[in-house]
Amino acid sequence: MFQSLQLLFQRIDNSKLFQSFVIFVIVVSAISVGAHTYALPVWLENLLLVLDRAITLFFLVEIIIRYMASKGFKAFFSKGWNIFDVVIVVGSLVPLAGSSVFIARLLRIFRVLRLVSMVPELRMLVNALLKAIPRMGHIALLMFVIFYIYAAVGSMMFSDINEELWRDVSIAMLTLFRIATFEDWTDVMYETMAVHPLSWLYYLTFIFLTAFIFLNMMVGVILEVMNNEHQAFVSEQTPDGDKPATRSQLDELQKQIAQLSQQLQQQQLK
Amino acid sequence: MFQSLQLLFQRIDNSKLFQSFVIFVIVVSAISVGAHTYALPVWLENLLLVLDRAITLFFLVEIIIRYMASKGFKAFFSKGWNIFDVVIVVGSLVPLAGSSVFIARLLRIFRVLRLVSMVPELRMLVNALLKAIPRMGHIALLMFVIFYIYAAVGSMMFSDINEELWRDVSIAMLTLFRIATFEDWTDVMYETMAVHPLSWLYYLTFIFLTAFIFLNMMVGVILEVMNNEHQAFVSEQTPDGDKPATRSQLDELQKQIAQLSQQLQQQQLK
Amino acid sequence: MFQSLQLLFQRIDNSKLFQSFVIFVIVVSAISVGAHTYALPVWLENLLLVLDRAITLFFLVEIIIRYMASKGFKAFFSKGWNIFDVVIVVGSLVPLAGSSVFIARLLRIFRVLRLVSMVPELRMLVNALLKAIPRMGHIALLMFVIFYIYAAVGSMMFSDINEELWRDVSIAMLTLFRIATFEDWTDVMYETMAVHPLSWLYYLTFIFLTAFIFLNMMVGVILEVMNNEHQAFVSEQTPDGDKPATRSQLDELQKQIAQLSQQLQQQQLK
Amino acid sequence: MFQSLQLLFQRIDNSKLFQSFVIFVIVVSAISVGAHTYALPVWLENLLLVLDRAITLFFLVEIIIRYMASKGFKAFFSKGWNIFDVVIVVGSLVPLAGSSVFIARLLRIFRVLRLVSMVPELRMLVNALLKAIPRMGHIALLMFVIFYIYAAVGSMMFSDINEELWRDVSIAMLTLFRIATFEDWTDVMYETMAVHPLSWLYYLTFIFLTAFIFLNMMVGVILEVMNNEHQAFVSEQTPDGDKPATRSQLDELQKQIAQLSQQLQQQQLK
Repeated sequence: MFQSLQLLFQRIDNSKLFQSFVIFVIVVSAISVGAHTYALPVWLENLLLVLDRAITLFFLVEIIIRYMASKGFKAFFSKGWNIFDVVIVVGSLVPLAGSSVFIARLLRIFRVLRLVSMVPELRMLVNALLKAIPRMGHIALLMFVIFYIYAAVGSMMFSDINEELWRDVSIAMLTLFRIATFEDWTDVMYETMAVHPLSWLYYLTFIFLTAFIFLNMMVGVILEVMNNEHQAFVSEQTPDGDKPATRSQLDELQKQIAQLSQQLQQQQLK
Repeated sequence: MFQSLQLLFQRIDNSKLFQSFVIFVIVVSAISVGAHTYALPVWLENLLLVLDRAITLFFLVEIIIRYMASKGFKAFFSKGWNIFDVVIVVGSLVPLAGSSVFIARLLRIFRVLRLVSMVPELRMLVNALLKAIPRMGHIALLMFVIFYIYAAVGSMMFSDINEELWRDVSIAMLTLFRIATFEDWTDVMYETMAVHPLSWLYYLTFIFLTAFIFLNMMVGVILEVMNNEHQAFVSEQTPDGDKPATRSQLDELQKQIAQLSQQLQQQQLK
Repeated sequence: MFQSLQLLFQRIDNSKLFQSFVIFVIVVSAISVGAHTYALPVWLENLLLVLDRAITLFFLVEIIIRYMASKGFKAFFSKGWNIFDVVIVVGSLVPLAGSSVFIARLLRIFRVLRLVSMVPELRMLVNALLKAIPRMGHIALLMFVIFYIYAAVGSMMFSDINEELWRDVSIAMLTLFRIATFEDWTDVMYETMAVHPLSWLYYLTFIFLTAFIFLNMMVGVILEVMNNEHQAFVSEQTPDGDKPATRSQLDELQKQIAQLSQQLQQQQLK
Repeated sequence: MFQSLQLLFQRIDNSKLFQSFVIFVIVVSAISVGAHTYALPVWLENLLLVLDRAITLFFLVEIIIRYMASKGFKAFFSKGWNIFDVVIVVGSLVPLAGSSVFIARLLRIFRVLRLVSMVPELRMLVNALLKAIPRMGHIALLMFVIFYIYAAVGSMMFSDINEELWRDVSIAMLTLFRIATFEDWTDVMYETMAVHPLSWLYYLTFIFLTAFIFLNMMVGVILEVMNNEHQAFVSEQTPDGDKPATRSQLDELQKQIAQLSQQLQQQQLK
């Protein structure tokens, strides 16, 4: 009897209708989250509260169906996206009252992220992005080292000029990030140039190092990753027989023909 | 008699002179639209009005010629650019008076867009752009989800700090777009950091997610599309005989030679 | 006697020493141009004036040598860079006095550009850039059409709100260029949103059309041009024998072997 | 006895534990540098001073071990990274007192850079970046020429309008760099347009030349360098036998078969 139930759940889980309905509920949940930010009449607020509970319940039922349809605990939680869904759904079970009201509301907002785990195209996009992260990790580390050094130098030299911007290393790093985005960076520079006339060197070298060179390197890494995926896709699609002939194949041929030639010569000798 | 008329229209439609004249009229129409925005003497205003009617009439005649030259209703409207032309030309027939004066003026401005449908190079450029849209669609959707979640969190946390920027989800999304373009984003951040000292995390993660990673992905997609087109163009241009030899061709060869070798051996056995 | 003079000039023109000295004079001329912008003592001003005349004279002599070394009028002026040099050098012969003092000073500044025509690496860079221009031409035209349409709509709708920014089509186009560079664009938007609450649509669509899509296309075109050059360079460097075997070559082989097989069969029949 | 000592040092130098510990000390040194920028109680300041001396000592010992483990003076200093390490470590031996306190503190900050020389992935990243510099050199030179010419023209025309921004060539170049980063460039432009209404031409041509075209070229160069490295890596990984068959190999084959055919014909003639 349990097995027939599992089969039923699997059929539900795989049906296009069920998946579309889940996506529809996620969109409704997103709209309800957005509606909360407007000033609403009391009756609508109450209606949204009821709707919110219904959505929470539906998501719980949906996760249970998906769990029942899977091949047990291990198979279910081996997929990262399932863990992601469970955390968000279980998290929004926290009652929307008391001191935890803030966190509960945050979790309701994060329910919109379930759209990413439900729409296959978005899931693929995010997977591709996650793949690029390890390679970007080293660039990020190098970037951090540069930021840290410039922040240490900056807070050492400029902290007397503007406390707000250069007080300590962490504030200075935020200021440097602002400079890296070109956001009113000349105001910061003109201020310190009044005291240290050569401080434009500090800003220009920093901008060259970060904004120009490193950003470009990031673009390079991403392009490479996308390129690799594209090539993998292409080489998967072309059947083996249509790939360019290899040198080793030709060497093989040459040996065969050499053998033929020998056979002929032996015949002639006879 | 009708057929000979159609042939005449086709000859007119295909003549370089006619096409050049249409482009010339579009440019005149563009200049007249631009001239309207300057303060002009009354006599020139009247002259522009007469010119405008002449242009409208000419465009109408041109569309009729192109329709007559085509192979009937279906063939004509199956081309998207023709529908585009008809809508713009018929739209500008609306009289330039009364309450619809605003829309009529807008449609006169959009007549400049006919340049895109008349110059083949521009038409190809726009076609290439439209091809890239479906692939960008998913990135846009993912981007929208991220904007929506950050806007919901932002309007929940910062609406008391600055009504103007964080009142509700839609206003917050506009503010986030502003931050994504780095436009005075530190002013917005410093304001909220005065209340929530850790709110820089909100801005930095948002900027990293949107401005850096996603913009780069968009560049990647566009480059890929352009690359594909380039490769399709290249593989079209190289004749089949000049393409690299395939592995299956070599396998075929190997079999032939093996057969030869067998034939020789049979000869020897005889 | 004239021929031996021409040979002498050619030897001078091709000598590394002469070319290095010309580059040195150009750099000196650049420094003198820069020095002019500082407040200098009178004696130095006079010295710079003398130096300037010496440089002008030297450039004149150099051009004459290069002309004499060339194979006549046609051969000399068929190279774009030579025309460029002549225009700049002859231009700076204009006396530095009277009403033309402004133009004379401008031409002295442009003499720095001769560095581009003298250093081969810079000349190649600029040539590569010029090659990319025709392809970018259509994108620029499409961009112009979009700017023009938005400027016409903008000056029609917003000219009453801010005369300074939206007075007529040309001023509106400058404002739009400012928006395309994200320079305080929200100030412009908030101003018009106070009157037309939906005008954010105007700005967002414009930014999406121009800043995002078209800039990326420009990157694409440039990359393609550079890629083409790179491929042309690579295929030039690999000797023909090392290129991948083509399908037509293999077909040829197959025919040969088929012939062999026939020969063998004929032998057997005998 | 000396040799066994060298072997011991080599074993220490190559051990993962030693390398990890060095990285750990660098990170501690970085944190201590950062902590210095905060207002700290006296006892912590003193503790940091002691820590700093311990780190300096450790780095000295580490460099000596690495030197002893190497194959002599020449082999050690032929590696750029070793010179880099020695300069930083010896530099931080300068006592943290007297008039040189500023330089001593700077060198302590630069010790964080040793992370780049110790983590292999960062070292490779920086090496790749350094490789791209020569090619970027010419673009930078061309960029400098354009900046210089515009700065000379700008300081000639606008120095009376705003002394702060256009006083002389060097200040004007800083202003132009600001314009190239789009930082409040319209404020600069509107100011000069009040006097010279056509000066927008100056700014727009400058922005087009620098920000758009040249930045894109830089991206192109970097991508090319990364691409080259990627291809070199790929062609290294695929064994020679799997590379596409070359045309010369096929020509060889064709000759062999032609020979075979001749042999057969000779047989038939017999």
